[in-house]
Amino acid sequence: MSLVIVGSMAFDTIETPFERRERIVGGSGTYASIAASFFTAPKVVSVVGKDFPEAVIAWMKKRNIDLTGLEIMEGKTFFWEGRYGDDPNQRTTLKTEVNVFMDFRPRLNETYRNAEIVLLGNIDPDLQEEILDQVRHPKLVAMDTIALWIESKREAMLRTLKRVNIFFANDEEIRLITKENNLVRAVRLLQELGPGIVVAKKGEHGALVFNKDRIFGVLAHPCENVVDPTGAGDSFAGGFLGYIDGLKTMKDPDIRRASVYGSVMASFVIEDFGMERLKNLSDEDIEKRYAVFKDLVSF
Amino acid sequence: MSLVIVGSMAFDTIETPFERRERIVGGSGTYASIAASFFTAPKVVSVVGKDFPEAVIAWMKKRNIDLTGLEIMEGKTFFWEGRYGDDPNQRTTLKTEVNVFMDFRPRLNETYRNAEIVLLGNIDPDLQEEILDQVRHPKLVAMDTIALWIESKREAMLRTLKRVNIFFANDEEIRLITKENNLVRAVRLLQELGPGIVVAKKGEHGALVFNKDRIFGVLAHPCENVVDPTGAGDSFAGGFLGYIDGLKTMKDPDIRRASVYGSVMASFVIEDFGMERLKNLSDEDIEKRYAVFKDLVSF
Repeated sequence: MSLVIVGSMAFDTIETPFERRERIVGGSGTYASIAASFFTAPKVVSVVGKDFPEAVIAWMKKRNIDLTGLEIMEGKTFFWEGRYGDDPNQRTTLKTEVNVFMDFRPRLNETYRNAEIVLLGNIDPDLQEEILDQVRHPKLVAMDTIALWIESKREAMLRTLKRVNIFFANDEEIRLITKENNLVRAVRLLQELGPGIVVAKKGEHGALVFNKDRIFGVLAHPCENVVDPTGAGDSFAGGFLGYIDGLKTMKDPDIRRASVYGSVMASFVIEDFGMERLKNLSDEDIEKRYAVFKDLVSF
Repeated sequence: MSLVIVGSMAFDTIETPFERRERIVGGSGTYASIAASFFTAPKVVSVVGKDFPEAVIAWMKKRNIDLTGLEIMEGKTFFWEGRYGDDPNQRTTLKTEVNVFMDFRPRLNETYRNAEIVLLGNIDPDLQEEILDQVRHPKLVAMDTIALWIESKREAMLRTLKRVNIFFANDEEIRLITKENNLVRAVRLLQELGPGIVVAKKGEHGALVFNKDRIFGVLAHPCENVVDPTGAGDSFAGGFLGYIDGLKTMKDPDIRRASVYGSVMASFVIEDFGMERLKNLSDEDIEKRYAVFKDLVSF
């Protein structure tokens, strides 16, 4: 298999009730591809400005991430600023500067066009669609989005959603799309719009993974110290698809294990700012945390 | 073992976004004892007025619930009126009439005084304490409370809490007691106040069960149609302790299974108004739902 990840590479300024960090490296594509790189060698489609740190690009390459789909353009890298409240599930976007993403019209190369798995990370749904059009025969298309696009580009978002197999969304986004308050019924409605599998993320409460007729629940790791929740969802998606990319099948037990690996990656990311916690993370750490997730629900 | 359940038997008027029911039978003692009766023969300490329906008392007796600790006094039964919003986790109390509970000073009989397990359901903490004082050598004391008592009778509540082994509370109540926002840290603080085991209930998100140094997570049953959430917490406690009462031990695996049976009972109760769903519930239904809970988290 081969996994192409489309998403932003960005600078984030993050404020929590305890600390503020200015212009640290973030972005859906960065988080997802680094999380995936613990399981496979993902290919990235993204764009940054000349101001993006070379050290991060070098680190990603060293982690076997294929960056031939990364454009480095004149201008400034995508920038996001947000603030978290006492409840880390609640965040407010203070600023978004699209910068080089404004004129990003990627042309995928041959290897990328032959990808079998595509993750359309959170970016403008028109751009998600344009990129998906270039992939010849994807076996598995996954998509993530945010309230902004659901509200401002609903038609484009629904058009892309129709071509998607796995949809990652938080419960609020699912309710926003379907206008249905009960999560189980909302997901059933969502499945009629395209994706056979819906991963309903619930932050500190974990996630429910709806397959055709079975539901899998994964709890979040009970974390004593949530430092920075940014990138948790992207890391979940990256870990999930990275794990699937290493397999030959995608049966229900595979999806369940993929969901746990996704949660494992998210559980690490939130323990420190930005990508800090992933820098020295080992495969052994991941397997240990996986065992903790197993113990957490065993009876 | 033998289980004594202290709690209210009451009339509830319940309003949901879809329906309103007037003066149906409810109360923490009623829900908990009926849930427990599927696993053991619980003894109830409570009080009702002459207006309480004899048919319900007859039903409880038929279910092997010992009601020698139930006083039937002149006057009116406890009454509660509440409203649920679109989010069934959000409820507003519209009216509480204490009625016969005002002068309730129970004297436990010999059999009750020799109880090994006591559930102090949600009532005035002074009354919880007064009743607990009468039990000679309880091996296991469990307690439930609500925000009202935490705010209005904090000292009495903390005094009782000190003597408790298992504390059932929702995440909001835990934060209210400890003033700590992070649930894991809040529970650690709570454990220092008395209870070795804390069951942190999170409504539709399930529950986290904190034992000395292990955490067990149980998901809520993904329910397509939450009709009336009233009594879910009491049924959880009743199912949990009813199951424990039938065992000889209370090791970690027992607590895990007890938590699942508690969730199973809660998952049925919310499917209909009041106690309706429990009326025709069979042991087979319970075992089937238990298997669903197992499948939900298996990987």
